[in-house]
Amino acid sequence: MSDKATFEFLCRMGDNTLVLGHRVSEWCGVAPVLEEDIALANTALDLIGQTQMWLGLAGEIEGRGRTADDLAMTRDAWDFRNVLLAEQPNGDFGQTMMRQFLFDAWHLAMLQALTRSCDTRVAEIAAKAVKEVRYHVERSGDTVIGLGDGTEESHRRMQAALDLLWPYVGEMFIPDAVDDAMAEAGIAPDLTELRAGFDSHVGSVMEAATLTIPDTDFAHKGGKSGFRHSEHLGHMLTQMQWLQRAYPGASW
Amino acid sequence: MSDKATFEFLCRMGDNTLVLGHRVSEWCGVAPVLEEDIALANTALDLIGQTQMWLGLAGEIEGRGRTADDLAMTRDAWDFRNVLLAEQPNGDFGQTMMRQFLFDAWHLAMLQALTRSCDTRVAEIAAKAVKEVRYHVERSGDTVIGLGDGTEESHRRMQAALDLLWPYVGEMFIPDAVDDAMAEAGIAPDLTELRAGFDSHVGSVMEAATLTIPDTDFAHKGGKSGFRHSEHLGHMLTQMQWLQRAYPGASW
Repeated sequence: MSDKATFEFLCRMGDNTLVLGHRVSEWCGVAPVLEEDIALANTALDLIGQTQMWLGLAGEIEGRGRTADDLAMTRDAWDFRNVLLAEQPNGDFGQTMMRQFLFDAWHLAMLQALTRSCDTRVAEIAAKAVKEVRYHVERSGDTVIGLGDGTEESHRRMQAALDLLWPYVGEMFIPDAVDDAMAEAGIAPDLTELRAGFDSHVGSVMEAATLTIPDTDFAHKGGKSGFRHSEHLGHMLTQMQWLQRAYPGASW
Repeated sequence: MSDKATFEFLCRMGDNTLVLGHRVSEWCGVAPVLEEDIALANTALDLIGQTQMWLGLAGEIEGRGRTADDLAMTRDAWDFRNVLLAEQPNGDFGQTMMRQFLFDAWHLAMLQALTRSCDTRVAEIAAKAVKEVRYHVERSGDTVIGLGDGTEESHRRMQAALDLLWPYVGEMFIPDAVDDAMAEAGIAPDLTELRAGFDSHVGSVMEAATLTIPDTDFAHKGGKSGFRHSEHLGHMLTQMQWLQRAYPGASW
């Protein structure tokens, strides 16, 4: 088990929560109703908090003295390892909640498995994060159901969101060399083994939401390998990293 | 005549063209038809070219060794001196063209006057720029007329754009201490004297466009003094300055 692969894996976990957390934070102050505004801000805070833990451990293992902040604020797009789903734009509120639910459902399964990691540091982070994510997925799932099985317009929008985002689901479950190395070492689960539970969970929510999962296995890839992010990530980073780029080392 | 006031004045001229030029460049590749896409890109290039001249002279007069690029790429929002109109978001194509026309009409009057500046460097820059801007205003004015006196939808959108942007016109004509110093020194015209020509020009275009100029003198201010930019400027700078912020001194 090379430290390099573990570093990559931890960046994937931390970049997922960082990038999605930033996306969700974009709703702060402009969500459709106050309750949702606060709920989204809290979700964003949870995800950023988890980022601190994942990237903190990544920096420790890398051993080059980089902190979680350094990793978050001074890497460029090609060094990010989040799945493409996380960086997709917010769209309307329904699209944001669909993205959230699809991520949450994977995230919950992943974290549950990681609580049994043979690396105790990983297991401990997962144990903390899973409590928050259990709540995230309950909330996003309920919202998907409420809007999917809602008015004609909300149903139409949720179906459009599902059609748009479904091709980003595959990447979360298709293992590559890093994932294989993690599974072999007992640090992380075999991603393919998480898929059945995900499909059953998501399937039941979509059924209750009266939404149809697209009949396609096509999967956009290139996010977690860093090989090909969508154009959205770079634009996001210009805003997210602005302060540390313009005022390097600034703190308060 | 202090160099400081002249520096401020030149930053105003250069920041107007820089910020508006960047905004217009945001249409590159996504304008509604190819002809307009190219026309907008050319307008943006003209404006950025003018920026080189204005900010180049500003840096020279400042005498601290800052180039036009340094001024454009490493100042923060509060050091920008463009009028608020220039930094307003593109909105739809009609809103972009309305912003362009309102700016162009002022810009033409200003540059015509500046060709008679007692500072020959200013007069020379103005003489070059005015040839381009004469064409800009002809084009933007024609488009405002075509869309204003067009379909029901295009008329509605153009009226909405005029209503939205009109409160940003006043700032271009209300002099402050810097403007007074420039006028006194014979470097720049008395801004108030440009207003009648602007009103007559804009009035005739709006009449042909069947659009109604809002009956208000209210003017948003704070852009050219740098005292209070709209939130849009900071977001724009994160993208415009990204490369020089992330890779200081990079060149090709």
